Amino acid sequence: MIIDCHGHYTTVPTAHTEWRHHQLAAFLEGRQAPPYPAISDDEIRESIEQNQLRLLRERGADMTIFSPRASAMGHHEGDERVSVPWSRACNDLIARVVGLFPETFVGVCQLPQSPGADLKASIAELERCVVELGFVGCNLSPDPSGGKWTAPPLTDQYWYPIYEKMVELDVPAMVHVSSSANPAFHATGAHYINADTTAFMQFVQGDLFAGFPDLRLVIPHGGGAVPYHWGRYRGLADMLNKPPLSAHVMKNVFFDTCVYHQPGIDLLFRVIDSGNILFGSEMVGAVRGIDPETGHFFDDTKRYVDAAGLSEADAAKVYCGNARRVYPRLDRALRSRGR
Amino acid sequence: MIIDCHGHYTTVPTAHTEWRHHQLAAFLEGRQAPPYPAISDDEIRESIEQNQLRLLRERGADMTIFSPRASAMGHHEGDERVSVPWSRACNDLIARVVGLFPETFVGVCQLPQSPGADLKASIAELERCVVELGFVGCNLSPDPSGGKWTAPPLTDQYWYPIYEKMVELDVPAMVHVSSSANPAFHATGAHYINADTTAFMQFVQGDLFAGFPDLRLVIPHGGGAVPYHWGRYRGLADMLNKPPLSAHVMKNVFFDTCVYHQPGIDLLFRVIDSGNILFGSEMVGAVRGIDPETGHFFDDTKRYVDAAGLSEADAAKVYCGNARRVYPRLDRALRSRGR
Repeated sequence: MIIDCHGHYTTVPTAHTEWRHHQLAAFLEGRQAPPYPAISDDEIRESIEQNQLRLLRERGADMTIFSPRASAMGHHEGDERVSVPWSRACNDLIARVVGLFPETFVGVCQLPQSPGADLKASIAELERCVVELGFVGCNLSPDPSGGKWTAPPLTDQYWYPIYEKMVELDVPAMVHVSSSANPAFHATGAHYINADTTAFMQFVQGDLFAGFPDLRLVIPHGGGAVPYHWGRYRGLADMLNKPPLSAHVMKNVFFDTCVYHQPGIDLLFRVIDSGNILFGSEMVGAVRGIDPETGHFFDDTKRYVDAAGLSEADAAKVYCGNARRVYPRLDRALRSRGR
Repeated sequence: MIIDCHGHYTTVPTAHTEWRHHQLAAFLEGRQAPPYPAISDDEIRESIEQNQLRLLRERGADMTIFSPRASAMGHHEGDERVSVPWSRACNDLIARVVGLFPETFVGVCQLPQSPGADLKASIAELERCVVELGFVGCNLSPDPSGGKWTAPPLTDQYWYPIYEKMVELDVPAMVHVSSSANPAFHATGAHYINADTTAFMQFVQGDLFAGFPDLRLVIPHGGGAVPYHWGRYRGLADMLNKPPLSAHVMKNVFFDTCVYHQPGIDLLFRVIDSGNILFGSEMVGAVRGIDPETGHFFDDTKRYVDAAGLSEADAAKVYCGNARRVYPRLDRALRSRGR
């Protein structure tokens, strides 16, 4: 069984995205947002069958851990009163996808974070999504300001309430920013990768996992710059008088395989233990074209993983075992179905 | 001949650093800064001989392109009237090192950038350093705000005056931020690497080199996350309808080898043309310890380059030829000495 840990609903029905525009316009004009539109099952079915489901089948994966479009989370747009209904609408749409394709998709929620706001609304939404909708994790943004980086580091006590709830519910978070409101940062080319790198270094600097030994965080996009600079991070941990990264960070932190070329994937497997790597494609995501050097889609990451020369045991971990371990609620759901 | 393109004077005499503290304290208190202290040649000689020169010899390099301590540039501290005398003091100290060890060190200057200020003072200081002090390049920070990222992208017209001066003087810049005033970003573990990644993506998004075909920029720390995510950047260029990176960016942009483990260096050479890679160590820099996995210093990058299996021709480019091409004033100085 092959589980893609990183898929986004980037192909939502138009009415959903249009409502967001109306919602933000209403906020700016001090009006009430219009009611959320009716979206038929057929529209949702079509948007999935023609995109994620088709690609999943063509590429040979079985299941996607599926979350709302990351670039549209937009925590920095409007305020918390805007972020809450938007997050609910996005998460409810994911729940409908899961309801229509329960064998193929499992839900992960976006959180109604908002710059400067506390995490109460995020905790409530996480609980709703896990307990009522059957989701198995969440996306947590280390920078709800959208590229201004005004939030405290992920090791700060500010974040502890959501970590406590995650541990209580036994769900992990993928550390994932949304779009960039800062012209210095291209969203998928700079902001995403920087956030991955930044989050990892925050974990190196802090001692978060000493206090939260059961917390699990997935850093997407192959861990940002981290595997490429693995020597730097091992050296910085040493200079900061921290334990080796294997003990200090890597019991709790996992990387996906959203690295869009063979040399990158090969490096990832060369330096990071296979127990810390979850297959992911970010599909349908940041890069949708075909690599002229290979003739295959850049984001068909399964090809790279298949060509990385993993042992059968390691491949089983990367494709399935690690995801079931990091997302135990998914594991339980699969077991209950005899998978 | 082996040229290290990335060395910093991190081991300055104490009096220099103390003056900086006095200067900033005076700024905060609205006082005049005290006069810059007398520092003897012996102090400078000792600080170099015991550190950079010793390590250079132990590790087998011949020459370092040498600039002030990057983390101390501190463009965000004080204002432009603080940044100008501080930059002059730092650059004058580099000039004294070069004067004492002319066979081993060649100067690169820091610029008196300041958040929100124009680049007139930076242009004047660049000209002074190149014309009067014989420097061969500069460090240019894409984020003088120190982690707030308030400056426009490097492709913005804001930067054009300094690029024009660089082209006129035939000197390159290393794109290098200073320390981080943002608690989200560890300086050497996140801010530096993020800046490298961010700058590269700005170049992908823009069309800077169409207008400045002779501009040359070195992105340090192995290009941040870029080589690891080379497929992503090739794919993003394609999605942005840009020419291939080889034509769009890589005629003008170079990466150094400040990547502190063998797998990272191997990846760098696997994906980036050897004509775009300059040997560098960032020494004495971010990571000063010994890698327990190898028994050698993390930042002894020559070992990794030597073990990367380069052809003799490629090694000659990386160790020397590319540096002489990117820094033509260095080449001319070396030729005039028959080297």
